[in-house]
Amino acid sequence: MKVHLLTIGDEILIGQIIDTNSAWMGQQLNLQGAEVVEISSLSDDRDSILNGLRHAEKNADVILITGGLGPTKDDITKKVIAEHFDTGMVFHEPTWERITKMFAKWGRPTTDAHRAQCFMPQNAEILTNRMGTAPGMWFQENGKVYVSMPGVPYEMKYLMENEVLPKLKTVFPGAAIGHRTLLTVGEGESRIAQRIEKFEAALPENVKIAYLPGLGAVRLRLTGRGGTQEDLELLLDAKKKELCDLLPDLLFGEERETLEGKIGEILKEKGLTLTLAESCTGGYIAHKITTVPGSSAYFLGSFVSYSNEMKMRQLGVKAETLQADGAVSEAVVREMSEGARKIIGADMALSISGIMGPGGGSEEKPVGTVWMSVAGPAGTVAEKITIGKDRLKNIEYASVRALNLLRRALLNL
Amino acid sequence: MKVHLLTIGDEILIGQIIDTNSAWMGQQLNLQGAEVVEISSLSDDRDSILNGLRHAEKNADVILITGGLGPTKDDITKKVIAEHFDTGMVFHEPTWERITKMFAKWGRPTTDAHRAQCFMPQNAEILTNRMGTAPGMWFQENGKVYVSMPGVPYEMKYLMENEVLPKLKTVFPGAAIGHRTLLTVGEGESRIAQRIEKFEAALPENVKIAYLPGLGAVRLRLTGRGGTQEDLELLLDAKKKELCDLLPDLLFGEERETLEGKIGEILKEKGLTLTLAESCTGGYIAHKITTVPGSSAYFLGSFVSYSNEMKMRQLGVKAETLQADGAVSEAVVREMSEGARKIIGADMALSISGIMGPGGGSEEKPVGTVWMSVAGPAGTVAEKITIGKDRLKNIEYASVRALNLLRRALLNL
Repeated sequence: MKVHLLTIGDEILIGQIIDTNSAWMGQQLNLQGAEVVEISSLSDDRDSILNGLRHAEKNADVILITGGLGPTKDDITKKVIAEHFDTGMVFHEPTWERITKMFAKWGRPTTDAHRAQCFMPQNAEILTNRMGTAPGMWFQENGKVYVSMPGVPYEMKYLMENEVLPKLKTVFPGAAIGHRTLLTVGEGESRIAQRIEKFEAALPENVKIAYLPGLGAVRLRLTGRGGTQEDLELLLDAKKKELCDLLPDLLFGEERETLEGKIGEILKEKGLTLTLAESCTGGYIAHKITTVPGSSAYFLGSFVSYSNEMKMRQLGVKAETLQADGAVSEAVVREMSEGARKIIGADMALSISGIMGPGGGSEEKPVGTVWMSVAGPAGTVAEKITIGKDRLKNIEYASVRALNLLRRALLNL
Repeated sequence: MKVHLLTIGDEILIGQIIDTNSAWMGQQLNLQGAEVVEISSLSDDRDSILNGLRHAEKNADVILITGGLGPTKDDITKKVIAEHFDTGMVFHEPTWERITKMFAKWGRPTTDAHRAQCFMPQNAEILTNRMGTAPGMWFQENGKVYVSMPGVPYEMKYLMENEVLPKLKTVFPGAAIGHRTLLTVGEGESRIAQRIEKFEAALPENVKIAYLPGLGAVRLRLTGRGGTQEDLELLLDAKKKELCDLLPDLLFGEERETLEGKIGEILKEKGLTLTLAESCTGGYIAHKITTVPGSSAYFLGSFVSYSNEMKMRQLGVKAETLQADGAVSEAVVREMSEGARKIIGADMALSISGIMGPGGGSEEKPVGTVWMSVAGPAGTVAEKITIGKDRLKNIEYASVRALNLLRRALLNL
């Protein structure tokens, strides 16, 4: 089953809202084994919508349309769909009854605009929307299915889950599909590709791998299609295991896990607490750690020791070390992590100090020079990385690398 | 100028990532007076891309393509573009030099995949990408412009701002257009609309106002069109001044300024230093402050005092106060800001403590209860806000409100 998602509304084209509906629909359809062949966003404009429908029906069996069903005059989807099918509009009494009941319950009057919402193309099968006024519409013409839904996310989701997905499954039973996503940190896309070259070349025809790169992290996604669902899941599990065995040092999680969430799990599992001493990342690592709900169970708090004064007075970094080696040095990050660990009484302490730019670099220590250290019950480790020139990117990337240093130290305990 | 945005990559179609690039591009193009007529997302697949290009060039003058340029083999955009233009691929020596230099600096080896990235369609004009390995490509064929860019957001943004938008302006000059954006914090959209109702009703035909709400802040954008550019700029300046005079208490900046940048300016101007004591925002305010280049001139560092232990030992909050009033209280945030100010020896200290959810709420203090305080040379102030239920949004919103409390305290000095 090939699906085209059509989103209607100027607010998406001018970038006023981000189209999150299509991503959600793509996920749900994909899980059902449907293939989304294209997503398109069009203007609230007759010609655009007609062209869009004609383009969509060329390559897809199913066309799911969202948006343009509200009670205001710029919402014209319904009329254009009727025109596309060369049919007229009829008043749908049950919808009008439902809307008047809803408004009576809220103690609010209906308007002419609500009555206008009850006119539907003659060939539409009405899908009841229990979340709002505009119903969904299902059309089956020339072996293809067309569905029109409101663009309001929770109304669309209600209709998809309760009406559209179940009906599609009966019309197009479809082949098996499955995915496995592995999360890596520490190497770029090309180095990973090199390391798994043979694995990739030996993948069976029906399994594909995709690289999804981010700052400091790369997600690897295996997708398999065809055969029975059971055989496919076994094949994907086997291939996932092979891949895991090839990249044990880089893998930190699966599917929707995050590095900071994973670190939280390890800390809870081992019953350990954490503190931080951040210089160049300026609190961003603490922010990442505390986005995890329940992080107060292991995160005691931390220092953003931006100035040398604070490094000395709050963390006990020695003036001589700062003098001799400078704030961005192995000796200083070691004193920072060890100092924070002792002062806070945490089991683990992560420290970081670097030059994020655009200013502050020197010939010896250019912008992008970063030292990080982890102090724990097994001792202290330190690592240097060299990164780019963009301040925000540097903060994000250095934070990911520092969290990975912490993760590796935790796994070694 | 009509523009079609084409996004390439299965990860969007299966909903693994949300297409935020198109929204950003839509905004930028709209500001230049361009009309985005369609946004479409396609699979990493030869036929889909060829069909997509043919469909796009029917209705648009400019086709901006993102994605599918990475060094791994699932990225085929470039080859399909060459096929579309019926041309071959040539090796682009300057790109190879740039990539080898980048990797030499990082002390990492290049791979065959990086060399493959240097082959470009023969008719491409190369746009240098200073943020990554894959360059942008500019094509001008049959009166239309085609641009291919990497899908990584910061690489795409770099190329759009530095190469694509300026070049498009020379190819399609278009009618006069101008914008003025004013930044407000402290009131919602409807209250602002009420306050500027008369101003809005009296705006000339060719000037429109848009409300762009964000978390805790609302941007007001005036857009003027037509006439000479000079007259238009004068008109917009006059209208901007009128608007400024109507909302002096809410306005904190213009255009791309940020609240944290503005606070940095005021601190520098007044020769003051800053520290923070964050509990519930977990380092996010420190992160915001330190995203500003040069912030080390006034930001001395800060505490993420997540645990009560840390509030007492590092900041000197009294055990009795925590016992009597709880960690989320006016008394505690006052002791936090005053303690941090004294211990760090900063002129200003901002503190915050609240319940971000999903857990941790009680009947008396539900999720979303937040206290904040600013201590400075003129004394200490405190404020309570009540916010929502979503953890990440709460962190963002509470940080904006706390920064605004600091900004107001600074302006009163």
